[in-house]
Amino acid sequence: MELEKSTDYLNYIMKRFYHIGADKNGGVTRLAYTVDEDKMHEELSRIGLEEGYIVTADEVGNTFLSLGDYEEYYLVGSHLDSVVNGGRYDGVLGVAVGLLLIKIIKEEKLNIPLKVVAFRCEESSNFMKSTLGSELITNGVNPKYFQVLKSKKGEKLEDIFANRGYNESPEKIKGVKNYLELHIEQGRILESESLRIGVVSAIAGNIRLQVKIRGLAEHSGATPMNLRQDALCGAAEIILGIEKIGQGDFTSNAVTTVGVIDNFPNSINVIPGEVIFSIDIRDGDNSVMEDIRIKIERLINEVCKKRNLSCDIQFISSTEAVKLDVNLIKELSSIAENLGIEHKIMPSGAGHDAMKLANITKTGMIFIPCKEGISHNPEEEARTDDAALGAKIILEYLKGDQQ
Amino acid sequence: MELEKSTDYLNYIMKRFYHIGADKNGGVTRLAYTVDEDKMHEELSRIGLEEGYIVTADEVGNTFLSLGDYEEYYLVGSHLDSVVNGGRYDGVLGVAVGLLLIKIIKEEKLNIPLKVVAFRCEESSNFMKSTLGSELITNGVNPKYFQVLKSKKGEKLEDIFANRGYNESPEKIKGVKNYLELHIEQGRILESESLRIGVVSAIAGNIRLQVKIRGLAEHSGATPMNLRQDALCGAAEIILGIEKIGQGDFTSNAVTTVGVIDNFPNSINVIPGEVIFSIDIRDGDNSVMEDIRIKIERLINEVCKKRNLSCDIQFISSTEAVKLDVNLIKELSSIAENLGIEHKIMPSGAGHDAMKLANITKTGMIFIPCKEGISHNPEEEARTDDAALGAKIILEYLKGDQQ
Repeated sequence: MELEKSTDYLNYIMKRFYHIGADKNGGVTRLAYTVDEDKMHEELSRIGLEEGYIVTADEVGNTFLSLGDYEEYYLVGSHLDSVVNGGRYDGVLGVAVGLLLIKIIKEEKLNIPLKVVAFRCEESSNFMKSTLGSELITNGVNPKYFQVLKSKKGEKLEDIFANRGYNESPEKIKGVKNYLELHIEQGRILESESLRIGVVSAIAGNIRLQVKIRGLAEHSGATPMNLRQDALCGAAEIILGIEKIGQGDFTSNAVTTVGVIDNFPNSINVIPGEVIFSIDIRDGDNSVMEDIRIKIERLINEVCKKRNLSCDIQFISSTEAVKLDVNLIKELSSIAENLGIEHKIMPSGAGHDAMKLANITKTGMIFIPCKEGISHNPEEEARTDDAALGAKIILEYLKGDQQ
Repeated sequence: MELEKSTDYLNYIMKRFYHIGADKNGGVTRLAYTVDEDKMHEELSRIGLEEGYIVTADEVGNTFLSLGDYEEYYLVGSHLDSVVNGGRYDGVLGVAVGLLLIKIIKEEKLNIPLKVVAFRCEESSNFMKSTLGSELITNGVNPKYFQVLKSKKGEKLEDIFANRGYNESPEKIKGVKNYLELHIEQGRILESESLRIGVVSAIAGNIRLQVKIRGLAEHSGATPMNLRQDALCGAAEIILGIEKIGQGDFTSNAVTTVGVIDNFPNSINVIPGEVIFSIDIRDGDNSVMEDIRIKIERLINEVCKKRNLSCDIQFISSTEAVKLDVNLIKELSSIAENLGIEHKIMPSGAGHDAMKLANITKTGMIFIPCKEGISHNPEEEARTDDAALGAKIILEYLKGDQQ
C-alpha cells in the first residue's frame, strides 16, 4: 500500500473514534473501565466486523482482531483509554496502526499471522494504576490492588470487575511471537531534532505515592499566623521540594510530578485542615527512583515536623524500568535506515503497555513526534503520515521475520 | 431569670437546630441560600410561633421575631448559615441569645422593645461573599455582585434571588436603636487568659482575591523538568510567599490565607496546567490590608514571569475594617465590671454582621471563648453558660438604656 493511501486509512480510523468521550473544550475523556472506554472498544469491534475480522475480548476486556485463529502470532496495538481531558492520539494511533497493518495483510494477501490488540486501562487517571489490562494478562496483578484501588468516582476496582463479569486472575496470554507498538513520543525530543521516527530502547519505570497532610481547619480571620497548622502551606513547601529533588543537577532524566491535589474543606475563610496529593517519580533506572523516593519521604517528614502537621505517606504502585529487546531495536533501526528514514534510538519517559509485554515476549516500540511534545492535553497533535511511516517499518520487520 | 435556667433554655434552643445540615463526621453544612439554611430559618420561625411571637421575613430572607410591632426597637441576633463542615455555635449561639432575651422579656413582662434577627449568608463559603443578608438591608450591595457571584454549585446569585422571589435592592431596615450581637471568639485569646467575656472594640476588614495560574498540562513522564510550565509548582511558591507576607514581622494582627485551591486536570500523570486559588487578607487597618494586597500581587506576577506561567488576578470582594461604638463598648464593659465578670476589650479578627449594622446604628458585640479557638470546624465548641452570662450583660444594658 502506498504511504498516502495508508495515511488516508489512518485518518479514516481516527475519525471513527473522534466523537467518543469528546469534551466541550476539544479534548477527550475516556477513563478506563467506564462507558467511554467501552464505546471505544465497541467501535473497534464494529470496524473489525465490517472488515470480516475475528473479534474477541479476553477476560479483562482487552479486544483482539485478526484474520485467522493463529497458534503463534505477532501482536501489534496499544490502548484506547485516555486521561481526563486528554488528546486523541495517545494510544489510539497505535491501535489504528494495527488496523492499518491487518488491512494491508488482507489486501495484499500476505502470509503474516497478526493480531491487533487494544488494551484496557493503560492510563492511571481513573484508578491511579497504569497498564492494568496488559499487566493482568502478562505478569498478573497483585490481588490486593483490586480491594485497594478505586475509580475517581469512588467505586472499588473489585466491584467494577465483579459487575462486568471480568476475571481478576485471567489466563496468561499465549502464542505471542513479538509485540510491537507505535506511540506518540509525548516529549519534544524528536520534534526538536526534526526526526519523524524514534526506535525506543527502554521505558522508564515509576513509583507512585499518595500523601495526606493533616493540620487544623480554623477560622481564617481569628487565627493568628503563628498559631496556624495550615495543611496547604505545608503541602506547598513539600511540592516545591519535590520539584527541586526531581530537577537534581539537571543532567539526569528523572522527573517528579505532583499531579493531583485535593484540599479540605476548600473554603475561602477556613485554614486548610487536610491536603491529599499524589507523587509520580519516573526514571529509566530503578535505583535512581528508589533514591528519589527516600529523599522525598524524608522531606515530607521534616516539613510536617517543623510545621506541627501530621502526615501519612501511602504507596500506590510502582512499575520497574524496562529495557527493550536489543536485537529488535537493531532490526527496526536498520530497516528504517534501509528505507532512508532518519531516526533516533531513544528511551521513553512515559510508561506503555510494551513494558508489560516485554516481560513475556520480544518487544519493540516505534515513536513518532507529537506537536510541541504536548500530550495528555486537548492540544495533543500528531501526523498520521508519520504513523504510516512507522507502520511501514513494522510491516517490513514482520515480512523479514517471516523469511 | 437565673443563669442556670438561662443556660438550660440556650441548650434547648441549640438542640432544636442540632440535626439540620448535619455531616457524617459530626460537623454541619448549612450553606447560605440553600435548603439547609432555609431549614434553620424555618425552625427559628417554628420556635417563634410556638412562643406566640410575631415572625416576619424581609425581602432577602432575613428572619425577625418580636413580641410587638415596634416603631423603634433594639435588635439582637446573628446568623444561621455555616461554612462547609463547620461547627454548631458560630452564629447560631447569637440567635439563641436573642431568643433567650425575648423569652426573659416576655416572662418577666419587661418593657423593652426587642427584635431578634437571623441574618442570611453571613459566611462567604457559598458565594465567596460574606455578610450578604445584613449588608443588603443596611448599605445595600453593589448590583454587579448579583451577576458575578455564583454558588459552589455554579448557580448565579441573580438567578437564586429571582427563583426565591427575593429583592436585590431591598428597603433599608428602619427603627433600629442599637444592634447587639453575641458571638464565639473563634480565636484563642479569651481561653488563654481564662476570661469568659470579651467586649469587641473593632472588627477586621478583608480583601478577597481569586487567582488563576495557567501553565501547560503535559505528560508527567515524557516532559523533562527544565521544560515544564507547572501551574501547581507556581501556585505552591506563591502560597508560601503569601504566608510569609501575612506573617510579616509577627507583631502585626494581619492574617493572609489561601483557603481554596482547585487544580486541573488533577490527574496523577499530568503536569498541572491550571490552578485556581483564593486569597483572604484581613486586618483592623484598611491601609495595612491594601499594602498587603499590593505586595501579594507583585509576588504573583514575579513568580509567574520567572516560571513562564500566565496569571489572572480577580478582585472578589472587600469589607472595610470597622470600629464599634466607643460609648457602647464602655457601657458593656462597665456593666460586666459591676456584675463582677472579668473581661477584656478586644478586636475581632473575624468579620460579623455587626460590622454592617455599625454603618446605620450604634452597635456592640460580646465575645465568649470557644474551645482551643477552633471554629469553622466540626470540633468547634463553646459553653452555653458563658453565652448566658453574655446575654445577662446585654439584658442589663437594655434595661439601663430604657431608664
